[in-house]
Amino acid sequence: MITRMSSLFLRTLREDPADAEVPSHKLLVRAGYVRRVAPGGYSWLPLGLRVLRRIETVVREEMDAIGAQEIQFPALLPKEPYETTGRWTDYGDSLFRLQDRKGVDYALGPTHEEFFALAVKGEYSSYKDYPVALYQIQTKYRDEARPRAGILRGREFVMKDSYSFDLDDEGLERSYQAHRAAYIRIFDRLGLDYVVVAATSGAMGGSASEEFLAVSPTGEDTYVRSTESGFAANVEAVVTPVPPAQAIEGRPEARPHHTPDTPTIESLVDFLNGAGLGRTFTAADTLKNVLVKTRAPGTKDWTLLGIGVPGDREVDMKRLEAALEPDEAALLDEKDFATNPFLVKGYIGPKSLRDNGVRYLVDPRIVPGTAWVTGADKADHHVVDLLCGRDFTPDGTIEAAEVWEGDASPDGQGTLIAARGIEIGHIFQLGRKYADAFELDALGADSKPIRITMGSYGVGVSRLVAVIAEQHHDELGLCWPRTVAPADVHVVLAGKDESIAEGAEKLAAELSERGLRVLLDDRKASPGVKFADAELVGVPTILVVGRGLAKGLVEVKDRASNEREEVPVDEAVQRLVALVRG
Amino acid sequence: MITRMSSLFLRTLREDPADAEVPSHKLLVRAGYVRRVAPGGYSWLPLGLRVLRRIETVVREEMDAIGAQEIQFPALLPKEPYETTGRWTDYGDSLFRLQDRKGVDYALGPTHEEFFALAVKGEYSSYKDYPVALYQIQTKYRDEARPRAGILRGREFVMKDSYSFDLDDEGLERSYQAHRAAYIRIFDRLGLDYVVVAATSGAMGGSASEEFLAVSPTGEDTYVRSTESGFAANVEAVVTPVPPAQAIEGRPEARPHHTPDTPTIESLVDFLNGAGLGRTFTAADTLKNVLVKTRAPGTKDWTLLGIGVPGDREVDMKRLEAALEPDEAALLDEKDFATNPFLVKGYIGPKSLRDNGVRYLVDPRIVPGTAWVTGADKADHHVVDLLCGRDFTPDGTIEAAEVWEGDASPDGQGTLIAARGIEIGHIFQLGRKYADAFELDALGADSKPIRITMGSYGVGVSRLVAVIAEQHHDELGLCWPRTVAPADVHVVLAGKDESIAEGAEKLAAELSERGLRVLLDDRKASPGVKFADAELVGVPTILVVGRGLAKGLVEVKDRASNEREEVPVDEAVQRLVALVRG
Repeated sequence: MITRMSSLFLRTLREDPADAEVPSHKLLVRAGYVRRVAPGGYSWLPLGLRVLRRIETVVREEMDAIGAQEIQFPALLPKEPYETTGRWTDYGDSLFRLQDRKGVDYALGPTHEEFFALAVKGEYSSYKDYPVALYQIQTKYRDEARPRAGILRGREFVMKDSYSFDLDDEGLERSYQAHRAAYIRIFDRLGLDYVVVAATSGAMGGSASEEFLAVSPTGEDTYVRSTESGFAANVEAVVTPVPPAQAIEGRPEARPHHTPDTPTIESLVDFLNGAGLGRTFTAADTLKNVLVKTRAPGTKDWTLLGIGVPGDREVDMKRLEAALEPDEAALLDEKDFATNPFLVKGYIGPKSLRDNGVRYLVDPRIVPGTAWVTGADKADHHVVDLLCGRDFTPDGTIEAAEVWEGDASPDGQGTLIAARGIEIGHIFQLGRKYADAFELDALGADSKPIRITMGSYGVGVSRLVAVIAEQHHDELGLCWPRTVAPADVHVVLAGKDESIAEGAEKLAAELSERGLRVLLDDRKASPGVKFADAELVGVPTILVVGRGLAKGLVEVKDRASNEREEVPVDEAVQRLVALVRG
Repeated sequence: MITRMSSLFLRTLREDPADAEVPSHKLLVRAGYVRRVAPGGYSWLPLGLRVLRRIETVVREEMDAIGAQEIQFPALLPKEPYETTGRWTDYGDSLFRLQDRKGVDYALGPTHEEFFALAVKGEYSSYKDYPVALYQIQTKYRDEARPRAGILRGREFVMKDSYSFDLDDEGLERSYQAHRAAYIRIFDRLGLDYVVVAATSGAMGGSASEEFLAVSPTGEDTYVRSTESGFAANVEAVVTPVPPAQAIEGRPEARPHHTPDTPTIESLVDFLNGAGLGRTFTAADTLKNVLVKTRAPGTKDWTLLGIGVPGDREVDMKRLEAALEPDEAALLDEKDFATNPFLVKGYIGPKSLRDNGVRYLVDPRIVPGTAWVTGADKADHHVVDLLCGRDFTPDGTIEAAEVWEGDASPDGQGTLIAARGIEIGHIFQLGRKYADAFELDALGADSKPIRITMGSYGVGVSRLVAVIAEQHHDELGLCWPRTVAPADVHVVLAGKDESIAEGAEKLAAELSERGLRVLLDDRKASPGVKFADAELVGVPTILVVGRGLAKGLVEVKDRASNEREEVPVDEAVQRLVALVRG
């Protein structure tokens, strides 16, 4: 196949688009792969669509290889199944909702757990029918609050979502591992540098869950990994190692102290260390109580919640939100403090929370027998040696404190270091949440119903175009891996001689006959413009047909390494075919 | 590729679905190709998705062959471009509209003229860039008032829409003819029986337009064709041949008549023929004036409109609506007559319409010099010999009268006969409507702007699955043409002997190795169930591996013709490969 740039619907741009911050966004627009149509909505121009389709093909092949079957649902979906599972409200503003001409409610599907569960319920009845795994490659919709970075976080995007249905937990584990292995093959084939991290399951519900994150400094997700072991986790999913409880007997009594003008941890520690108490205090000895308010999805009224963390750490709102999901959480405002006068700002302690019926959750490090300096619920006063399990009893623990590099790895091996990534895949063991909602049962061999257990697995297909671009570019433009490149060879016709044009056409035709996809720059433009566009567009191999042809030579250039080689023209086709076929 | 029915996500049904009326709907559901998810929304199960993809491939190949370039737009589209062309309101209730979390308006795209025009304007500037043709194969949305017949008329469907951009009318004509030829190749390759008919252009605007209609008794579209020539047209597009004007001088004067109790044409004709006027009257001599009300899209107030047609014909509301497009039309109700007392029901004449400023359009047969019996605007009174061009002058003509079989063909050759069809393609010469709206110009060689002229071309890709099923089925099930069949050979393993299973597996493997797509019925079911399912599913060739295998024989059956042949097992693969490769 030969694609001629003289007629290709492609105009490259010399300038970065004004709204672009990350390299993939800049380059995909400049090289004419995508164009912005609306906030978070992009059109795919010819070269972009080719890359997208090649990624789809890799994903499809690996899904088929594990026996998953491709089907396809509408994107415009009725409300009722989402209501049955509660996601009509749980999704909040992220769900695009609309009404038809009769006023009936619909949503644009963000994921399809409900509909796949109903589909299997509709077709299958016997235990002999299971297991089954189904998938679709489909356009999805999410009303992102902040669509950003071009196609990295759009509001309309292509996703591969698959769903497994098993009779028991062991079956689910097998289906999960099959998908995990398929995802590894997909991302390896796509030439990605990525990690698999433990994740929280968010609005999906369910238990085990891992994310595939492409390593990228522009990523929105922060993850941590161990310096020693293979442990890696999304920051939201880091589980704090719990220290052993300590003895309570014989410990000093809690004593209130007048600590004037110490509303911050820093001022408090300074005061205590100057107060001649005979010990040295650090921020880690203090207990910081942060008040938030929460509410269940679809409800209006907020409820107060106290969060206790060691004073050397801040509350990480993303971790807090993940821990409270699907409930919503917000910090208190001045009005909230005004209507709750028992909250003495800067001096809040566990006592007034308990006395006023406020739920109080603490960091897992705050175990029975640990002693703390904390607020005495009175301005300019703190309590020292307040003992957990003796002087206060939290209502439970919560993973809300920030995670630091250098923290012990949850698996006990090494310490954590942080990095940034872009989510490219997510696998969930949903369990029976959706099967329960729809009473998805198989009739067992003993004629008793068996409740089905589900897995849910997603790959951000259109996002991958951008992620690959993030990892495969340089200052001149894109450098596509062969698997996804929009063409195999970019033939640059450099020179005005008729013989050069003839030579380039002949080589392009021969390469095409051998099954290679050729992008032929036959435009009436200067060699400089053509070379710059070839670098920008990023086809892996560039074949320059120019003045050297008179001496029987053409130039083969590797886009990524920038290595060039002069090759006799009659060896060029053979060399290129070998290169492309690997 | 071997697809095993033992694990295929497919359950055939013995009963027709309750809501299905047309054969394709019944069979596609019963054979497990599609499932209903919402009104006008269907999921594609594995076999259905395969047929859909094969049709997409044929369409894509023929679009690429005429040099059209594939791109893809979002389905979720901003309001502004639709407002610029007026289609935000013109589309009426058929457009799915929604708002994002910020309250900004969006539509789910029904077609993309605006966005393709803007895309070309964004990339191209010089006359040297043209012509260009772009297309997409994409999910479209239309809020149909009456979604029906399964995927024949859905609210979410797959369409190939393409758009041509030319510098002048000759270029548009060339682009239009290229598309026309490509459509003929597409529908021929898909094995369809279809006609190309002249059409109206509806909400799209523009001039020349043709529809491709698949011949089908269940079709919603009625078209007519000439008994003599190749003329064929959508009923809405039939242009009435205009008779010559007649002399006015020397004609009898118009005379009012007391015609008691004659509010209908029939009663009037009976009365006149019994009134001793010395001539015989037929319904064709009377002029029936039908009052309707119209309004422009997006407006609230109705305007009266008088329609005059020969009394032997009814007003065809579909033709009337097509003629008034994009305005909306409705019949008057009692309240309308009450507020307009000059409208004397059953006795309305041109005079009171003129006197009261009501626009009056007549059938093209009502030419100057034709004499009519019509209402005298007074109960129980008519006028005889009211002469067009002397006693009344219409404001214009309108194609609103019904078309009859036997009417003269508009091309002057033969008469019309009617048939029913399903729209499968539509091609339009849009002209400059959209280019004008967006000021889409090319800079000419003389540095002057050239306004671009557009064509718009659509194929209902998902609908084609149903249309092919309508034309290719029998009482037992579907009979797919090879081009679109979900498999090449359906291997039925009929018998419990281990040797039969081994033989079937071996044949399936050999066929697959030769590149054939095999559907292998390896289920533990009776041969009767398997044969019935093979007929229902409709793969073109069925290979039965059963008891004959002991004698070295298998049966090859042609699904469509029902011809069977016993074939030596060691010749079977060769025979089937030859059959499939054609």
